[in-house]
Amino acid sequence: MSEYIENDVHGVSVGIVEKQLFTTAEPPDDMLLECGTRFGPITIAYEVYGKLNADRSNAVLILHALSGDSHVAGYYSQEDEKPGWWDSMVGPGKGIDTDKYFVICSNIIGSCMGSTGPCTINPKTIMPYGLEFPMVTIGDMVKAQKRLIESLGIEKLLAVVGGSVGGMQVLEWCVRYPEMVAAAIPLATTTRHSALAIAFNEIARQAIMADPNLNNGNYYSGDRPETGLAVARMIGHVTYLSDQSMRLKFGRQLQNKNKFSFSFDSDFQVESYLRYQGKRFVDRFDANSFLYITKAGDYFDLAEQHGGGSIMEAFSKAKARFLVVSFTSDWLYPTYQSREMVKAIKKTGLEVSFCEIEAEWGHDAFLIPNPRLSNIIKGFLNRVFDDTSR
Amino acid sequence: MSEYIENDVHGVSVGIVEKQLFTTAEPPDDMLLECGTRFGPITIAYEVYGKLNADRSNAVLILHALSGDSHVAGYYSQEDEKPGWWDSMVGPGKGIDTDKYFVICSNIIGSCMGSTGPCTINPKTIMPYGLEFPMVTIGDMVKAQKRLIESLGIEKLLAVVGGSVGGMQVLEWCVRYPEMVAAAIPLATTTRHSALAIAFNEIARQAIMADPNLNNGNYYSGDRPETGLAVARMIGHVTYLSDQSMRLKFGRQLQNKNKFSFSFDSDFQVESYLRYQGKRFVDRFDANSFLYITKAGDYFDLAEQHGGGSIMEAFSKAKARFLVVSFTSDWLYPTYQSREMVKAIKKTGLEVSFCEIEAEWGHDAFLIPNPRLSNIIKGFLNRVFDDTSR
Repeated sequence: MSEYIENDVHGVSVGIVEKQLFTTAEPPDDMLLECGTRFGPITIAYEVYGKLNADRSNAVLILHALSGDSHVAGYYSQEDEKPGWWDSMVGPGKGIDTDKYFVICSNIIGSCMGSTGPCTINPKTIMPYGLEFPMVTIGDMVKAQKRLIESLGIEKLLAVVGGSVGGMQVLEWCVRYPEMVAAAIPLATTTRHSALAIAFNEIARQAIMADPNLNNGNYYSGDRPETGLAVARMIGHVTYLSDQSMRLKFGRQLQNKNKFSFSFDSDFQVESYLRYQGKRFVDRFDANSFLYITKAGDYFDLAEQHGGGSIMEAFSKAKARFLVVSFTSDWLYPTYQSREMVKAIKKTGLEVSFCEIEAEWGHDAFLIPNPRLSNIIKGFLNRVFDDTSR
Repeated sequence: MSEYIENDVHGVSVGIVEKQLFTTAEPPDDMLLECGTRFGPITIAYEVYGKLNADRSNAVLILHALSGDSHVAGYYSQEDEKPGWWDSMVGPGKGIDTDKYFVICSNIIGSCMGSTGPCTINPKTIMPYGLEFPMVTIGDMVKAQKRLIESLGIEKLLAVVGGSVGGMQVLEWCVRYPEMVAAAIPLATTTRHSALAIAFNEIARQAIMADPNLNNGNYYSGDRPETGLAVARMIGHVTYLSDQSMRLKFGRQLQNKNKFSFSFDSDFQVESYLRYQGKRFVDRFDANSFLYITKAGDYFDLAEQHGGGSIMEAFSKAKARFLVVSFTSDWLYPTYQSREMVKAIKKTGLEVSFCEIEAEWGHDAFLIPNPRLSNIIKGFLNRVFDDTSR
């Protein structure tokens, strides 16, 4: 079994990859956003892995979560210490096999990882957009992705795959562009945020807004709202874990064995871990993007936006085969939400497989190497590919 | 049934009450704190309800949670809109019957509701202590309470009762002063914080520390760290609720029916509710006290502090009869933590009753009028009183 894990999950990476840019250039170079604003041109950062086959039927689009990027696997250079964020899943022979499939991963609009977002220079003012950036929705993100996919000459995706906010994009793809999606794998996600999920996002946003350095979003030439963003990240981070995983990872272990500081320093390891996570995050992520993407997540409501309030109605627009995966300890998007989704898909007559994976790592479990998850995804993709190739 | 609820839970209040002050005056007027500092004199704000009987055997001490105070029931004046924080439980004929018992509720040291805390004037500097206030522990709070109880001429308490951080004080009382406690009712509490509970407290503290107005705790003559404290309160508030209670209370209901603002205004009712809760809290609570009391909660570890790491060893020092109550939807101090407590108490041979109450209101459930909880507490207290009066 351990040998199997070696090969399947920690096996060879896709190696050196390159970030590419696609910009909506042809007229109309702007896009009508759900908020009513016309916006453009839009640039999308993306990466591709593997080879598109002759009939262009082996393309798999991977959609990232809140703070992710297009760098899903491999390394940018020999010096890179870490590969892309889902290297355990994407690569030669892995769950999403780059020897067999052509994998695309694009950065969402609104983000700060290469695609157009609030830190992008507004060509009209020659200043970063900041909070002048329009509110973008999950639908807008997918609409922009569609242009990228078409630009690559792909008419139909074999599969769209993603977890968390990436999973919302998966669902949006299926109902918005049903002819373009053969199969869908939404992981650790929901058709709409619960009040609890909105609450945590809102508190994180309030932490950023409480930081005077936010300066109404115009901080790119000065001090950034780092303390606010760090607190926001800490909140997010805890919601991605679970009571159990934190107990196993930290318990009540002290920084200074058996001694309390009797001060407001970090006494417990979990405290210094969170402070570290907060600090690290501000080096790589933009506070404005955090505001925009969390709000897009909160707005997302598949039933309201595509089914007049009925989730079944919304799914009845889809034509994909589904593999829905939830994780036992995910309390941000608990299994009951996935079950509701599966029930609605089933009712429409579409094919759906559901798997609840026993995992202690909370919401983050979908990102953690897991041979079972890799196997399930691999099997599902292979079946879909075989069926569509027939 | 509704008539019964009327009488038992929403019945007559204890009426007009008065806050009183007790100050440790006799030498030594200082107290040795667990952090090693000698500190004093200490003032404790407290309220009493009902009458102490001739043999002083009917005293019930109620211990409040993080942001509570001594005003457990009744009104300060005819104009008061709201009674004390546990008026549904404490009063004539109620769960803790003030016709029968002499009820004492004291504000914990470190708080800002009348007892000595960081907002108190330091007699040596004639300035508020601020973060010069010594770190106080749950043990220190209980040690101070003991002096108050003795000053009232009470040698043995019929019962100590409290939820959350108040429940920690209940447990501390039982093992620290076993001869003084006949019965103990710890509600919705734990013998020590999990990593998850520490994490949320730490994030809340970091939110306060991120506020430049904190000014190292010296803000009493200027702007207060209100935005930081508001975010801290929002975090706390969500941990006191539950996925289910928030779904029932808010769901995805919008402020402006069926319309998104496509801005960072409050779109969802849960957002404006949290903002409101945050704002309201800063009017009544002190940021420094929030820092101190949450840290005291995190430090509390009954097994480490009283049993050399063994929870059974710690409880073997107690002599009380226990009634332990947990709530199904409390994810801050989940039932499994109460079960561990009950198991340890049982093993010591002490009498313990355990009740897990089906409640959707999360951790806050212990504060919400609940005839079942009132009945259980009433029955338990009556049995203990009858047995000790024999």
